[in-house]
Amino acid sequence: MEIDLKNITVIGFDADDTLWVNETYFREAEEKFASLLDAYETKNTIDQELFKMEIKNLELYGYGIKGFVLSMIESALELSNNKVSHETLNKILDIGKEMISHPVELLDGVEEVLKELSKKYRLIVLTKGDLLDQERKLKRSNLLHYFHHVEVLSDKKEQNYQNLLDHLEIKVDEFLMVGNSLKSDVLPLINIGAKAIHVPFHTTWQHEEANENETNGKEYKTISELKELLKFL
Amino acid sequence: MEIDLKNITVIGFDADDTLWVNETYFREAEEKFASLLDAYETKNTIDQELFKMEIKNLELYGYGIKGFVLSMIESALELSNNKVSHETLNKILDIGKEMISHPVELLDGVEEVLKELSKKYRLIVLTKGDLLDQERKLKRSNLLHYFHHVEVLSDKKEQNYQNLLDHLEIKVDEFLMVGNSLKSDVLPLINIGAKAIHVPFHTTWQHEEANENETNGKEYKTISELKELLKFL
Repeated sequence: MEIDLKNITVIGFDADDTLWVNETYFREAEEKFASLLDAYETKNTIDQELFKMEIKNLELYGYGIKGFVLSMIESALELSNNKVSHETLNKILDIGKEMISHPVELLDGVEEVLKELSKKYRLIVLTKGDLLDQERKLKRSNLLHYFHHVEVLSDKKEQNYQNLLDHLEIKVDEFLMVGNSLKSDVLPLINIGAKAIHVPFHTTWQHEEANENETNGKEYKTISELKELLKFL
Repeated sequence: MEIDLKNITVIGFDADDTLWVNETYFREAEEKFASLLDAYETKNTIDQELFKMEIKNLELYGYGIKGFVLSMIESALELSNNKVSHETLNKILDIGKEMISHPVELLDGVEEVLKELSKKYRLIVLTKGDLLDQERKLKRSNLLHYFHHVEVLSDKKEQNYQNLLDHLEIKVDEFLMVGNSLKSDVLPLINIGAKAIHVPFHTTWQHEEANENETNGKEYKTISELKELLKFL
């Protein structure tokens, strides 16, 4: 679908899985978690139960690694019927610490795209999750100097975006959001009258998936990699 | 000490233990934690070991309840030499969930003070910790409408404050910070040339304590309760 981008002055970038790899590490952590508990349940059941636990705890813990680790621990106790070894629990804590300390892996073309676009547009980062964790990744990414503003949101619903655009005095029709999640980076923006470009990442957390009903008739553009942005911006 | 407040146009309030009770719940959680583990160590040792664990993990986990719970779990495994019961681990998870869900208890006079001061000054909230948790408390507090801006910082060092004042275009000599922590709410402000008022809370986390060397000769005012602000602002 073609969308009209001629009014755009500010571009917002999602960070996790748009600028750098993130979901992959969660998938790897889930793999390790399932192996640690393979004496108690099938991999399939473990995956499903952990996902249910995360969703159950989402309102309390929010997004991010720490809440994920707490859900893994609770899930390990439950799945093993309180038989899980202390060694396994310590390993779960270690999985979390490794995730937090993981080096930042930029996605292909990110630096080039930001460098070019920062000459013509105001660029901002709009991410959700753990504040400290996101700040740390931005610092490690060496991308901070391309951005006029960085905002870590507790969630990415229409109201969160609207409040932020108001606060930064950005007109909604001058704003383009770029991100990998239809649910968080595309649909809420279109619903408030901004523009959005979808750059799918090969892995999407089940909770971030959007269905056809939600996307039907919505005007956004999908590109296969970030570098394509330079063709029309 | 008397400080000159005539240039002040913007007042920043810390939130935890300045607007509402917070540290008390951490102390209560530590009490519960020590009782749960009293078969393994003395209360004193448990307190000390938990504190050491929190400090060791602070760089990774940052401030907030989720990191605290992860440190309690790691500490329970370590203190019990991996003998802690699964029931106890489940109770530790519950302690965290109760803390997150706790109703907000405003400190004495908060509503009155904010109502009065919001007529003459721009008020902002500057807090640190977990983004979702702080947003939730602000919402539950019913105080949001008094504030022009809310900022949750990952830390409260001089640079964090300076960046924020720059971003909000607030001149440093027009800014007054009010908070309960000498280390986080008072000293960094004075060091960058702003003003600060210290309102001690009866309980201070060891990590937030400042020593005499740090405070010596610094110009800030101490009041015993928030309502005193109305005498000179």
